[in-house]
Amino acid sequence: MVLKLYCDLMSQPSRALYILLKSVKCDFEPRFVDLRKAEHYSEEYTKINRFQRVPVIDHDGFLLTESVAILKYLARENIIPDALYPRESKLQARVEEFLEYQHAGLRLHCAMYFRVIYMNPILTGSPTDPKSAVGYKKRMISSLEDFNTKWLGRGTDFIVGNKITVADLIAACELEQPRMAGYFPEENFQNIEIWWKKVRDYFNPHYDEAHVILTKIVNKQKKTVSKI
Amino acid sequence: MVLKLYCDLMSQPSRALYILLKSVKCDFEPRFVDLRKAEHYSEEYTKINRFQRVPVIDHDGFLLTESVAILKYLARENIIPDALYPRESKLQARVEEFLEYQHAGLRLHCAMYFRVIYMNPILTGSPTDPKSAVGYKKRMISSLEDFNTKWLGRGTDFIVGNKITVADLIAACELEQPRMAGYFPEENFQNIEIWWKKVRDYFNPHYDEAHVILTKIVNKQKKTVSKI
Repeated sequence: MVLKLYCDLMSQPSRALYILLKSVKCDFEPRFVDLRKAEHYSEEYTKINRFQRVPVIDHDGFLLTESVAILKYLARENIIPDALYPRESKLQARVEEFLEYQHAGLRLHCAMYFRVIYMNPILTGSPTDPKSAVGYKKRMISSLEDFNTKWLGRGTDFIVGNKITVADLIAACELEQPRMAGYFPEENFQNIEIWWKKVRDYFNPHYDEAHVILTKIVNKQKKTVSKI
Repeated sequence: MVLKLYCDLMSQPSRALYILLKSVKCDFEPRFVDLRKAEHYSEEYTKINRFQRVPVIDHDGFLLTESVAILKYLARENIIPDALYPRESKLQARVEEFLEYQHAGLRLHCAMYFRVIYMNPILTGSPTDPKSAVGYKKRMISSLEDFNTKWLGRGTDFIVGNKITVADLIAACELEQPRMAGYFPEENFQNIEIWWKKVRDYFNPHYDEAHVILTKIVNKQKKTVSKI
């Protein structure tokens, strides 16, 4: 069995899959696709993923895109254990309920905030229109409020009950994204702060390893902000 | 076994689940939640879904939200047959690849176009800002182009090979939404036109039955447009 993971650790679902595969001691080959060098737009990579995105897996020649579809496939192939992706139907449904929710309920808003506040000014050389920035921030905060109270804050340690699952890892990696744009969810939402520490602890040292570049950017941003 | 489906046929994933359950001759109880009367915001319904959305299923007391998570659960419970939701791992991965893609790749743009062009003027009494409308239309058309060429247009009858699956039904119901706002994907994209007819034919009479109200709105819109 050869499993390759095409990924860039700047991409949140890439990090989630990278951390997961490391944690379950899967002998996979990471293939780094540098988004900042636009390697995902190359002719070679477009043959791997016609949508020119990461992550992608190549499992003995079977190419699959979409991080949540990849998670499900890896669970069926017993690469992700039952402990992290429950096989029992109702418990699995609860995990998948979050995995489906997060696309438009969390990921969209955190990713857009990161893109508009951090990436676009770098790419275009122009600062973001302040009125537009306020709208993106408002929508992100609203989605974080929902995550803080309607998924967490229900008396359990993790998103689905008291056991950690892939749902927690996907959410944790997502919430790192706005930190690069100077917004820190853990400083504003207590349930998120408490839960996030548990997720990091469980997946370390792999969690921190996958976030090395991101953490450097976050620290640089903090210095910039403190100078102002 | 009692299966209840909380739905509104104005909602595209509600229609998909309704059509699917009818097609597989599942003896379910539809519970209509009128979004236009804001019934989803009621205290009673909030207990069913804390996110105040449709669809939701109640399967012998097990409440589940998120249409794609519901589809997966119903497949595991053998309510959706293998023919429509393949159990073979790689084939299932291909179906799920689309189900995950469509959240941000198709649904977001079609739903936003419908909301901005059709719903918001009704709710607010003010027409949509034309500049903003152009942006939403552009993003929707781009997503339809991708659907037309990168999912369809690959030499197969359906999204995943030559057999119809739940992926086709989810996409078909989604593409109905902009028609209410006066945009007709079938008039602009030939692969979509050909594929759509096959999906409707397969799921009829249930497909048309679930689209009765929508079709009335579409026809009313057409008359309004032709008068101008």
